[in-house]
Amino acid sequence: MVTARLRTVEDAARAISSMQVRGAPLIGVTAAYGMALAMRADASDANLAAAYAGLIKTRPTAVNLRWALEQMRSLLEPLPEPRRLKAAYARAAELAEEDVTTNLAIGENGLELLRAALEKKKPGEPLRIMTHCNAGRIATVDWGTATAPIYLAQAQGLPVHVWVSETRPRNQGSALTAWELGERGVPLTVISDNAAGHLLQRGLVDLIIVGAARVTARGDVANKIGTYMKALAARAHDVPFYVAFPETTIDWTLQDGVAEIPIEQRDPREVTHAVGALGKTGSGEVRITPEGAAARNDAFDVTPARYITGFITERGVCRASASELKRLFGRRRR
Amino acid sequence: MVTARLRTVEDAARAISSMQVRGAPLIGVTAAYGMALAMRADASDANLAAAYAGLIKTRPTAVNLRWALEQMRSLLEPLPEPRRLKAAYARAAELAEEDVTTNLAIGENGLELLRAALEKKKPGEPLRIMTHCNAGRIATVDWGTATAPIYLAQAQGLPVHVWVSETRPRNQGSALTAWELGERGVPLTVISDNAAGHLLQRGLVDLIIVGAARVTARGDVANKIGTYMKALAARAHDVPFYVAFPETTIDWTLQDGVAEIPIEQRDPREVTHAVGALGKTGSGEVRITPEGAAARNDAFDVTPARYITGFITERGVCRASASELKRLFGRRRR
Repeated sequence: MVTARLRTVEDAARAISSMQVRGAPLIGVTAAYGMALAMRADASDANLAAAYAGLIKTRPTAVNLRWALEQMRSLLEPLPEPRRLKAAYARAAELAEEDVTTNLAIGENGLELLRAALEKKKPGEPLRIMTHCNAGRIATVDWGTATAPIYLAQAQGLPVHVWVSETRPRNQGSALTAWELGERGVPLTVISDNAAGHLLQRGLVDLIIVGAARVTARGDVANKIGTYMKALAARAHDVPFYVAFPETTIDWTLQDGVAEIPIEQRDPREVTHAVGALGKTGSGEVRITPEGAAARNDAFDVTPARYITGFITERGVCRASASELKRLFGRRRR
Repeated sequence: MVTARLRTVEDAARAISSMQVRGAPLIGVTAAYGMALAMRADASDANLAAAYAGLIKTRPTAVNLRWALEQMRSLLEPLPEPRRLKAAYARAAELAEEDVTTNLAIGENGLELLRAALEKKKPGEPLRIMTHCNAGRIATVDWGTATAPIYLAQAQGLPVHVWVSETRPRNQGSALTAWELGERGVPLTVISDNAAGHLLQRGLVDLIIVGAARVTARGDVANKIGTYMKALAARAHDVPFYVAFPETTIDWTLQDGVAEIPIEQRDPREVTHAVGALGKTGSGEVRITPEGAAARNDAFDVTPARYITGFITERGVCRASASELKRLFGRRRR
C-alpha cells in the first residue's frame, strides 16, 4: 500500500480525477480537504471560487463531491479571510469523522438484514452475499457502505461469504474489495463480471449489496458500470438487491436517474488495457485488444428504483421510493 | 498470428483443452482431424477407442465435439484397419468443408434479419449489433456463426457497427472478435462486459447476435459465460436477441439446459489473471487479485429459450422452441 501526500488543491483534484482516491464518500472528504489546502495557499474569494471550480469538475457522477464542496463554500464564503484556513480544516475533519459514524450506522442497519436472511438458512450455512466494485473501507474513511454490514457480521461471528465481482475495466472488485475483505479474514471468491447471472441462476447468491455514486429523490441509483445487469439478474431470480449509501449520496434535485444523472466517460485505454501485478513485486498492464481498436468507457450505469429491493442508510432501511426516502431523511434534510 | 502444427491425437486434445483452438464448430473439426491423426499412428480398434476417449473429455460443454467424434467413430469402426486412415482424413476434410458451407448459409439467413432491421432505421444510420465472445471465422473453419451475417452485410455495403464485449476471463471478444472484424474493416467498438446493460438501456444497440456451445431440443442455449445477462438486459429493453449455430450444436438428447448441460469449470487462474500484449512485441499476464485470492471460473452459462428472440441456422431462422427446431431439422436429423 502506498500513502499519497496531497499538498495542494491541485494534488487533491488530481488524486480524485486519476482515481487515486475513489468511492463517493471518500471523494467528498478528499474534496473538503482540497478546499482546506486551497485556503492554506491563498484564502481570497478568488481562490475559494477557483478551488471550488477546479474540484467540482474532477468527477461528474458521484454527488458527494458537490455536497462536500457546497458545505465548504457556504461555510467559508461568509468568513473573513484570516479565519478561513482553520475553519476549513475543522470542517473537513468533521466530515471525515461523520463519514465513519455514518458508515457504522449503515453497517448496523444492514446487519439486521443479514441476520434476518441468515435465519432463513440452515444453521451453519454461510450467507452468500454478492457485491460489485468497491464500496468498502477504502472507498470511505472507514467501514465502507456496502461492506459495513459485512464487517459487523464478521465481527459478531456470523457466517458470511462474499462473491466479489472483478469490476472491469478498473478491477475495483478483484483488486480492492478482495484485498480489504481478505485482509480482515472475510471469506470471499472472486468471479468475472460475466459470471454473476449464472451464479444467481444456480441459487448460489442469497443477496446483493452494492454502493452508490448518486441516488435520485425517487430512488434511481447511479453506481459503477455493471451494477444494472446485476440488478436485472437478481430480479429474474428473486434475489434481494440492496444499495447502501449515506444521505450525502442523495441528489434531491433529480428524479429520473437514466435521463438526468451525468455518466462519466473515461479514457478508453482503461478498457483496452488491464492493470495488475506484474512479476514478483512490480505492477504493469497488458493490452487486451488489437492495437488501435476503438473502445468506449462509460464509468457508471443507472439502476431504476423498481429493480431495487431496498436501501440501507444511516437512518434505517427503506424501500427504493420517493416517499420512503423522504420519510427517512425529510426532517433533517440539509 | 501463430500457426500450430498438430502431429498427434495428443496434440489435438491439448490444442482443444488449452483453447489454442476454441469455438464449438472448430473444436468439432479439430477433434475429427485428431481421430485421423490417431489412425495415422495406429489404426487398431484399441487406439480408435483410446483416441475417442482422450478427445471427448477435453471440453465438456460444446456438443459439436461429441457429434464430430461420433461421426468419426461410426465411420471408422466398421472399416478394416488398413482403410481407416484414408477414410478418416477424407471425412475430417468433409466436415471442415461442410462447416464453411453451413456457416455461409447461416450468414445468408442472418443477413435477411439484418436487412429487415436496417429498413427500420434512418437511411445511412448503421445497424448497431452487439456480440459476445467469439463466434467468428476463427471459432469455425471460416465465416463464423454469429459473425457470418455481419461479414455478408459488410461485403454488400450495408452499414453495420459492432459492439464487441470483452468477454472476461479469456477476452475472446476484445482479443479475437475485435481482431477478426477489424482485419476485415468492420467498424467496431470494444466495451467492458459490464457496459452491455447500460448501452441497451440507452438505446444504442439494435440487436444482439451470439453463438452457442450447445442448444437443447427445446431451445435452451449454453454459451460463453456472460451471455445470459446480455439476454436478460436485451429482454428488459425489447432488443432482439439472436443465437446463430449449425445443426451440429443441437443436443437432441437434452431438454432443460439449466439442469442438464454440463458447465465446464476452468482454472481459477484465468479469473485471477489477465493475459494480453506486453511491451512492443511480447505477451504476458498481470495478476488482478491479491495473491492467493480464491476465484471461481464457470466457462459457460445457460440462457433459457424464453429469453431468445430467434435462432439463425443453416436451415433458416426460427423461434427458440422445440417445435420450431423440429420443423427446421426434423427431416434431415442424422
